[in-house]
Amino acid sequence: MTTRILVIGAGRSTISLIDYLLKNASSYNWFITVTDADVNLALAKTKGYLNCEAKTFNVSNEIDRKSFIQSHDIVVSMLPAFLHAEVAKDCVALGKHLFTASYVSPEMKELNKEAQSKGVLLMNEIGLDPGIDHASAMKIINQLKDKGAKITSFKSYCGGLVAPEYNDNLWGYKFSWNPRNVVVAGQSTAQYFQNGKLKFIPYNRLFTQIDTILIDGYGSFDAYANRDSISYQEPYGLKDIQTLLRGTLRMPGYCEAWNVFVKLGLTDDTYKIHQADSMTYTQLINSFLLDEKNSVRDRLRAFMGKDYNDAIEMKLDYLELFSDKKIKLNEGTPAQLLQDLLEEKWKLKHNDKDMIVMQHLFEYELNGKTHKLTSSLVVKGDDEDYTAMAKTVGLPLAITLKNFLTGKFKLSGVQIPIVKEIYDPLIKELEQLGIKFVEKEN
Amino acid sequence: MTTRILVIGAGRSTISLIDYLLKNASSYNWFITVTDADVNLALAKTKGYLNCEAKTFNVSNEIDRKSFIQSHDIVVSMLPAFLHAEVAKDCVALGKHLFTASYVSPEMKELNKEAQSKGVLLMNEIGLDPGIDHASAMKIINQLKDKGAKITSFKSYCGGLVAPEYNDNLWGYKFSWNPRNVVVAGQSTAQYFQNGKLKFIPYNRLFTQIDTILIDGYGSFDAYANRDSISYQEPYGLKDIQTLLRGTLRMPGYCEAWNVFVKLGLTDDTYKIHQADSMTYTQLINSFLLDEKNSVRDRLRAFMGKDYNDAIEMKLDYLELFSDKKIKLNEGTPAQLLQDLLEEKWKLKHNDKDMIVMQHLFEYELNGKTHKLTSSLVVKGDDEDYTAMAKTVGLPLAITLKNFLTGKFKLSGVQIPIVKEIYDPLIKELEQLGIKFVEKEN
Repeated sequence: MTTRILVIGAGRSTISLIDYLLKNASSYNWFITVTDADVNLALAKTKGYLNCEAKTFNVSNEIDRKSFIQSHDIVVSMLPAFLHAEVAKDCVALGKHLFTASYVSPEMKELNKEAQSKGVLLMNEIGLDPGIDHASAMKIINQLKDKGAKITSFKSYCGGLVAPEYNDNLWGYKFSWNPRNVVVAGQSTAQYFQNGKLKFIPYNRLFTQIDTILIDGYGSFDAYANRDSISYQEPYGLKDIQTLLRGTLRMPGYCEAWNVFVKLGLTDDTYKIHQADSMTYTQLINSFLLDEKNSVRDRLRAFMGKDYNDAIEMKLDYLELFSDKKIKLNEGTPAQLLQDLLEEKWKLKHNDKDMIVMQHLFEYELNGKTHKLTSSLVVKGDDEDYTAMAKTVGLPLAITLKNFLTGKFKLSGVQIPIVKEIYDPLIKELEQLGIKFVEKEN
Repeated sequence: MTTRILVIGAGRSTISLIDYLLKNASSYNWFITVTDADVNLALAKTKGYLNCEAKTFNVSNEIDRKSFIQSHDIVVSMLPAFLHAEVAKDCVALGKHLFTASYVSPEMKELNKEAQSKGVLLMNEIGLDPGIDHASAMKIINQLKDKGAKITSFKSYCGGLVAPEYNDNLWGYKFSWNPRNVVVAGQSTAQYFQNGKLKFIPYNRLFTQIDTILIDGYGSFDAYANRDSISYQEPYGLKDIQTLLRGTLRMPGYCEAWNVFVKLGLTDDTYKIHQADSMTYTQLINSFLLDEKNSVRDRLRAFMGKDYNDAIEMKLDYLELFSDKKIKLNEGTPAQLLQDLLEEKWKLKHNDKDMIVMQHLFEYELNGKTHKLTSSLVVKGDDEDYTAMAKTVGLPLAITLKNFLTGKFKLSGVQIPIVKEIYDPLIKELEQLGIKFVEKEN
């Protein structure tokens, strides 16, 4: 019997996911409906393939949404995270499995019991970060535990960057995924454990408390702390852990420069500025500084004090922030106005390749000795469509969906990829596809 | 015919409001139903009065709420601001007028057209701040305009404080209203005009950009910028204004000390700390500091840098923040844990009197000359129940409700007290009750 798969959302990071499903459709007797608010995106992704169709529907329309879900066996939601909840509720009500690459939201968590009782799987966090990070970390954690090791420290970092050979801007950054997520990144207090103590970093100093990470062959990276690391202590089974931190990687120097935007208030997304297009970006910066006679450039330097240097100023000049560059949007939050500028300056150009970097750092005790273990992953994109981001977000979901449909694991309720039945076959197949961690004891 | 008035909420700041209504009930043929989630609060406030009853109902229960509103002619909502929206919707649907002392919310604004078409008045911002500030400012603005003056600068400040003769703590602050509002005060970017330029102050430096205000006979006060001042340009009719700022007053030295909490992250209300009662307040502060060997006291001083001094440290010591004082709450946001401590330390004691202070500062041009005008109000409480806060929040609402019911003005839709028919009789009666501004040209 044909299994009918519904993919909702066919945007930028879905190309590898949809390709994988379509390439495997005839072997496994799948029929795949690819949908997007923009039908052209769905058409482009399905072009040349059999066993599929491209459709469009309004996901906010309850009747449409339910009817699409009802006529399929399993749903993949690649929608923005805040739209998953309604889809998930319908899936549970209609007895359909759901896969997403997003963090488990409180609304998703609430569906756990009902999904379990109905035998419905709500598979989440099965992309890159969250996704590959969970799977690869849990594999090492369980191997160390099996050896009898006591894990005392676990730090895990990930970043979506531009490949060094295509890095032609002073920030070392280009957008390989949703620009908005980059601009508002980290806007909650980071929580983690350090040497057995609870630690918090409020957003306004997140980009000043930076770790430095080294990846062999790629040099060093800045890392800033990412969201709530503490919440992973229990699912990861790290009861006695002293240090537990998840972080995000950027090229060296990015964080100290981004800190200028955070300190000024330019990443604020809570209020709109009207008639913004009557202002220049320099005037926008001036709005956040005390009024004095000297130039915005000088006042910004004074305002930032010790957190400023010439390298930062060059990055701001690269964005034309001290020129008379006009704001284009008529209205927007400071974050939206900043994003509009960055989308122009940090565009991943034709033939550019992106790169994702992940590193886990473990410290553990075994037979009375202290050990360190590093596991690192670097993936580069093929081109500006088949990005490293699209591959590493899409393939884990597609592979795990295949493994579920072919009976490699049987689970229900809200799940993330931290159990062996999920991560073992996933990691094996990713390795065959060139997505392979390198381990190093030191 | 009897007019039936429903008062929802009989908490701390409602005593003067309810007294005024009850004292006038027989003269104007009113019957007043005072309700609260805690019926004892309603009973206490109505005790000894005729023409009234005390009731309780669950305001979240739609059927109860509608039935209470349906059986009255006019509603006063003294609920926390976020609960007004449902009450307002019911009032419009059932054709009942509504009075609140809270800011006009976006949900309230949306009801404007329907309320107008039904002849329903939704009177908001008719307390102290917002309330008396609007009325008293508009009276001066219109007088100056009538003289042909061009107003170039308007700053308006208000604070609810402890009266100096009852000030026995280092912060010069005691709670005369909802402590939560004090702890999370200012958690949005302040927006104002300065010398014709748009200015923003993000929350994380709100308490460092301080004005100093002088009130004759009371000395100087700290003032920090309050919310979105720009949004009052249009309703106040201040088209050509160069400087427009609303601010909140505190005793001198309060802001620089409160800044420590803001900078650390102790006023964050977005995430919960679990098993908080296993920590001391010193350990809580330590969670926000980098881990090094020296004491929390020393590291906090280093962390704050130039924004610290001995007077600030004494204020923190007054709160026992460097002692081994245990946190009492089992879980809570940093803001809730801080509030719990402050409620103990900043309690308005029996026989203590509070004080509210308001000052408007105008600059205007008339006949080619520049003028300054200051209008100041100081009100002290009678005791810990009949506080200055209760009087100045409750009386404007009660008086304006009476003026509306006796036909002194006829308006519908969403209103705030900026029109002459409302503010003129209001200010006159407040003066008779001892709530009187002092004007000074300088």
